[in-house]
Amino acid sequence: MLIHLSSWPEIDARLNSGEALGRTIVIPIGSNEQHGPTGLLGTDWLCPEIIAHAAEATDQTLIVGPTFNIGMAQHHLAFAGTISLRPSTFMAAITDWVSSLSRHGFDRIYFLNGHGGNVATIEATFSEIYAEWSFIEEAPPFVLKLKNWWDLPGVMGLCNQLFPTGHGMHATPSEIAVTQAAYPDRIKTAAYSPQIAPSGPIRDAQDYRARFPDGRIGSDPAQASPEKGQRIIDLAVPSLLKDVAAFANETLPGT
Amino acid sequence: MLIHLSSWPEIDARLNSGEALGRTIVIPIGSNEQHGPTGLLGTDWLCPEIIAHAAEATDQTLIVGPTFNIGMAQHHLAFAGTISLRPSTFMAAITDWVSSLSRHGFDRIYFLNGHGGNVATIEATFSEIYAEWSFIEEAPPFVLKLKNWWDLPGVMGLCNQLFPTGHGMHATPSEIAVTQAAYPDRIKTAAYSPQIAPSGPIRDAQDYRARFPDGRIGSDPAQASPEKGQRIIDLAVPSLLKDVAAFANETLPGT
Amino acid sequence: MLIHLSSWPEIDARLNSGEALGRTIVIPIGSNEQHGPTGLLGTDWLCPEIIAHAAEATDQTLIVGPTFNIGMAQHHLAFAGTISLRPSTFMAAITDWVSSLSRHGFDRIYFLNGHGGNVATIEATFSEIYAEWSFIEEAPPFVLKLKNWWDLPGVMGLCNQLFPTGHGMHATPSEIAVTQAAYPDRIKTAAYSPQIAPSGPIRDAQDYRARFPDGRIGSDPAQASPEKGQRIIDLAVPSLLKDVAAFANETLPGT
Amino acid sequence: MLIHLSSWPEIDARLNSGEALGRTIVIPIGSNEQHGPTGLLGTDWLCPEIIAHAAEATDQTLIVGPTFNIGMAQHHLAFAGTISLRPSTFMAAITDWVSSLSRHGFDRIYFLNGHGGNVATIEATFSEIYAEWSFIEEAPPFVLKLKNWWDLPGVMGLCNQLFPTGHGMHATPSEIAVTQAAYPDRIKTAAYSPQIAPSGPIRDAQDYRARFPDGRIGSDPAQASPEKGQRIIDLAVPSLLKDVAAFANETLPGT
Amino acid sequence: MLIHLSSWPEIDARLNSGEALGRTIVIPIGSNEQHGPTGLLGTDWLCPEIIAHAAEATDQTLIVGPTFNIGMAQHHLAFAGTISLRPSTFMAAITDWVSSLSRHGFDRIYFLNGHGGNVATIEATFSEIYAEWSFIEEAPPFVLKLKNWWDLPGVMGLCNQLFPTGHGMHATPSEIAVTQAAYPDRIKTAAYSPQIAPSGPIRDAQDYRARFPDGRIGSDPAQASPEKGQRIIDLAVPSLLKDVAAFANETLPGT
Amino acid sequence: MLIHLSSWPEIDARLNSGEALGRTIVIPIGSNEQHGPTGLLGTDWLCPEIIAHAAEATDQTLIVGPTFNIGMAQHHLAFAGTISLRPSTFMAAITDWVSSLSRHGFDRIYFLNGHGGNVATIEATFSEIYAEWSFIEEAPPFVLKLKNWWDLPGVMGLCNQLFPTGHGMHATPSEIAVTQAAYPDRIKTAAYSPQIAPSGPIRDAQDYRARFPDGRIGSDPAQASPEKGQRIIDLAVPSLLKDVAAFANETLPGT
Repeated sequence: MLIHLSSWPEIDARLNSGEALGRTIVIPIGSNEQHGPTGLLGTDWLCPEIIAHAAEATDQTLIVGPTFNIGMAQHHLAFAGTISLRPSTFMAAITDWVSSLSRHGFDRIYFLNGHGGNVATIEATFSEIYAEWSFIEEAPPFVLKLKNWWDLPGVMGLCNQLFPTGHGMHATPSEIAVTQAAYPDRIKTAAYSPQIAPSGPIRDAQDYRARFPDGRIGSDPAQASPEKGQRIIDLAVPSLLKDVAAFANETLPGT
Repeated sequence: MLIHLSSWPEIDARLNSGEALGRTIVIPIGSNEQHGPTGLLGTDWLCPEIIAHAAEATDQTLIVGPTFNIGMAQHHLAFAGTISLRPSTFMAAITDWVSSLSRHGFDRIYFLNGHGGNVATIEATFSEIYAEWSFIEEAPPFVLKLKNWWDLPGVMGLCNQLFPTGHGMHATPSEIAVTQAAYPDRIKTAAYSPQIAPSGPIRDAQDYRARFPDGRIGSDPAQASPEKGQRIIDLAVPSLLKDVAAFANETLPGT
Repeated sequence: MLIHLSSWPEIDARLNSGEALGRTIVIPIGSNEQHGPTGLLGTDWLCPEIIAHAAEATDQTLIVGPTFNIGMAQHHLAFAGTISLRPSTFMAAITDWVSSLSRHGFDRIYFLNGHGGNVATIEATFSEIYAEWSFIEEAPPFVLKLKNWWDLPGVMGLCNQLFPTGHGMHATPSEIAVTQAAYPDRIKTAAYSPQIAPSGPIRDAQDYRARFPDGRIGSDPAQASPEKGQRIIDLAVPSLLKDVAAFANETLPGT
Repeated sequence: MLIHLSSWPEIDARLNSGEALGRTIVIPIGSNEQHGPTGLLGTDWLCPEIIAHAAEATDQTLIVGPTFNIGMAQHHLAFAGTISLRPSTFMAAITDWVSSLSRHGFDRIYFLNGHGGNVATIEATFSEIYAEWSFIEEAPPFVLKLKNWWDLPGVMGLCNQLFPTGHGMHATPSEIAVTQAAYPDRIKTAAYSPQIAPSGPIRDAQDYRARFPDGRIGSDPAQASPEKGQRIIDLAVPSLLKDVAAFANETLPGT
Repeated sequence: MLIHLSSWPEIDARLNSGEALGRTIVIPIGSNEQHGPTGLLGTDWLCPEIIAHAAEATDQTLIVGPTFNIGMAQHHLAFAGTISLRPSTFMAAITDWVSSLSRHGFDRIYFLNGHGGNVATIEATFSEIYAEWSFIEEAPPFVLKLKNWWDLPGVMGLCNQLFPTGHGMHATPSEIAVTQAAYPDRIKTAAYSPQIAPSGPIRDAQDYRARFPDGRIGSDPAQASPEKGQRIIDLAVPSLLKDVAAFANETLPGT
Repeated sequence: MLIHLSSWPEIDARLNSGEALGRTIVIPIGSNEQHGPTGLLGTDWLCPEIIAHAAEATDQTLIVGPTFNIGMAQHHLAFAGTISLRPSTFMAAITDWVSSLSRHGFDRIYFLNGHGGNVATIEATFSEIYAEWSFIEEAPPFVLKLKNWWDLPGVMGLCNQLFPTGHGMHATPSEIAVTQAAYPDRIKTAAYSPQIAPSGPIRDAQDYRARFPDGRIGSDPAQASPEKGQRIIDLAVPSLLKDVAAFANETLPGT
């Protein structure tokens, strides 16, 4: 079930189905930011959306929410098209999503993340949300989980096998391949050098652009292809379904 | 140009094209909220996205950003699937979008809105953003504009002609028709009564559900059809293109 | 009853009177901002105060709170004397007023507004306040209402009749007339041209001053007179009393 | 000059007069809170307003802004009619007032305070405002000053002489006398006991009401009279004028 | 008991001892800021820490928390080494300390303060914390108290006796003497003039440095000695123990 | 140089020495939280303080600031003595520390962290700080670095060698050993079982206590000894000095 293409009585029925999966929701979350000379700006929110929607197409008992498409990308702001929330804004927005979903009875909220730069802020947000309960000696009525799509069991192994060199950390061939599989008419090519981009620390936007002039970090995205992307998706889908099912059915201590 | 399906060098080239339209961006903005017994949860963000993407398909010099899909919908929270930002969160997020886009040189930012409940908060946000400049005696480097899609010239006239009775204020047949045109495989039907829903004030979520038990306000959405939706889209597209062009080319006082 | 000129036992007695009007309070709310070459800076908070106090003088069962005299006027900051809250500050302050009044048992809070520029922020604040309840599936113990004094039944009709041309949108002859009726020793005159000020969009303070050099929008305030102001007040008073009584006695769904 | 009863060109002329007093503004600031069985809710904002307006009537070169009528009164919230801002809201609001006034060229801002409970928050706000400048190694373009009206030279001496016993700390006969002088038709009487109210620490609202059941702290307000109030006003007016003039003309180090 | 050198079961046992002192905690709180040509940057947090730890060494039933070492010192920022929180940050942090301690059952929280510049913000914070309860008609489960170490009974008398002239207001010989007693190997000497520093108002950092070029206000710290510092400590310790015991055992109204 | 035991002229001299290390500061940062049945509450702030102070004792050109002793520990709040900041508060406080230190000319700020639970929030804070600069196309005048003490080169290798089993994730024998070396008179013993504590996810405080009843995660802290702690310290000190020197002397791109 895709929330945004369903009616409220349909969602209500799932929530009241008595199944653990009916109270569990997957939120694709990413970022809209530069992905090197050939990557799409939407890469980081498209990838988890592509995987989650493919999973829902496979098993329609999976509930997938709208995509949270803007994340923490301050370091990419020197490249056109990047849109970033400040961490504090990002935290407030995630908090409101959780408050809304919890209001309806979703008690397991699973963020399928597509942007490494989001991780610290999402984890800090979970702590901010939990803190409200921890200060008052009550248990929250929900459990939160963050999973990067490349950390789904098996996925990184396949990526490393497909791209043994030049996978890198940003504008990687695997994420670009996933978008190519889904948007084959939007494949870009560009000359770039060096073939494998440099690596280094991530700080502010000016520093980033000085270190990584075309936006890539450690990657050679020309290795991507729609076929490789599809292989990644095909592996990620069952892995996601299994991970979500385990989360939905996890027994909490004291219950 | 759809930002999320472009690379940063492509966007950079448009920004530096010297055309006013190259520094103007359209942001579809809406809400994810109940739309009565048959409407899709995503209706309010899908409608401006559908119209903006159709406009971009017609004229690819139009730059369209990612869709801002969660807005101010606190009054709908008693219906499953609704996700709402608090107004203060919504304001912070819009502010960060504007800061990001302005950073790249976009000097006209046009929000194409799909949710009446967003209007007050978006306008308050514009004031919050402008205030930073007004307090310090400087001019901001951008102009902001809010336009509801149903306020595009000609659109409401057509809606009233298509649905002379039971158009109403929420879960209207025109917005549902627009989503039916774009997602014909997601058309829902349901029995409801009364045929035309009641009207009344909008306050908190419990009050809303008590007044409007199935979520509609004043509407009879069963009148919607994909064909009618397509007529609305076909009218809205040129109207949007013209309105954005006028905005892009508007001369500011003192310049 | 004017709250600020009463003692707490007097207010307590009214709150415990058992009458709906005893738990209803009118808050005059406005702005301190330029009103063209002849208008008083306080015009927008004086007008609702004048009308509300006149109503209370007519019917002392009406409870009127202190005047909220500073609102959202960022666009007027290029004119001396204007004081503006940022929307976010305005929201926090209104929230605290509501929390305070609700604490005492006021369950209907009626804001009589004198500034169009306040409307979006006040409505966003209502949503912010209601959201706290909507997220937790409870009903708030109060209802909030916003009414502009010129939207009281009959008032705008009279204004249009008194000033068929040059009424405009800011520094209107009707608001200036109301202040002239109440402060006849503070009537100002000034030469200005054009006789009817230009109109246009409202953005930041520098843009505003460039478009509207003497501060007026679309108005010719020299048409104001204390007599006309008194006619407006005399019409607004019974209209306000009736509107507040209806609000106080409105039945809520589910009660 | 009373800002709210002036036009912007009049204020502009004063600001550009070249006089130090033309760039200095007095803001009466107080609180709307219970003042015992006989005191007016508005006492704490009325007193500084009464004194400042009387001073302006004496010397019209004194510029007096609108009254900041709601302050920090959380401890009085168990008594009907009290309206309080949270300290954080109060800080934001004062900050916006200062930003607005500074924008026009006021470089000395003098808060004439009528509520002891405001002092800590106003001082914290001054530090919050100054900190923005202190962090960036710049001097702010304004100086802020807080003065309680009872701390104007000579005033407390007179109060102690008029009320040698039972002056107390809240709902004092001197503040009530000042309001009686200005609003002689609003004088209240009530039986209360003990004649002199108890004293003690100030904490939250429930604690306050338990300690001070009728709202007074250490005072016997029945000693107040309009005549005594007028004597206090008559002494405070020249004292205020002198204090403001000294502030306006104070030389800053390094200038 | 020093919290940071204890285990949680030890603290738990004290909290559950049934003694009032077992639910009372002392928090040394200060500032890290310049203290003139010879004072240590840590002076203002070291002094309350020194006194509180000495008291705990005398009577181990006293519970002392970690030291809150950064406070409100914006006015000292023009001198190297000063670290300041904005008042709003300081308020948030104190609030979280109180929430944490209250969570464990501490119902009396005693801040032993070492910096005059902290007082306004700490008091504003107490009001901010209490306000949450005052707005909802409940009593907070804790009482907060602020005491400057120099206001402990007897202390200021001794300081004045030890330093009859040149005690001053900042970088006083008494506070420097206390740190000399505790850190005799960190005693500094420096030539300065005038012997007794000037006095004046405290505003922003640039103004402060212009008025007080070496950082002192009104003081002659060369009078300090470790012996004098020890005398102050020796007097302060029993005074603190007595003051805390009185606070722990104070009966609240209505209990 | 320990900032808190130095005078401002001493710090000023170091800042103006022309050495890169003179503009680099190490801030020990940790948390005050339960550390199992035998660990000190202060463990996580004591460890980086112990190591940083030992490094400064070895090489006094190292500048060490005051210890930031309260961090993000919401998950430990069900154990007595834990004090936690909400992530949002923690972010504000770190931001103010950085603003203060940058004001003085420190251009490299090195946080030596002692608490894994701080990492996400500290990284989010760095992004929040950098974002201010990234949005406005300027480079910040400082570089921020986070290093956990156990990630200093060589340290974790030694810890694993000293404690091949039962090192775990919280209340580890290595951190407890470090505190034992520094506070040998505060060594605690307690019976606990199982010998090696369980592992699992970290969520809110109630969940934490249910999963980890005595507070440990995966550890057997009884293996700690002062001697082992000293070995860790002795290895960490030169490793820290080398890491800080490299950071101080790192060349930034574009400079």
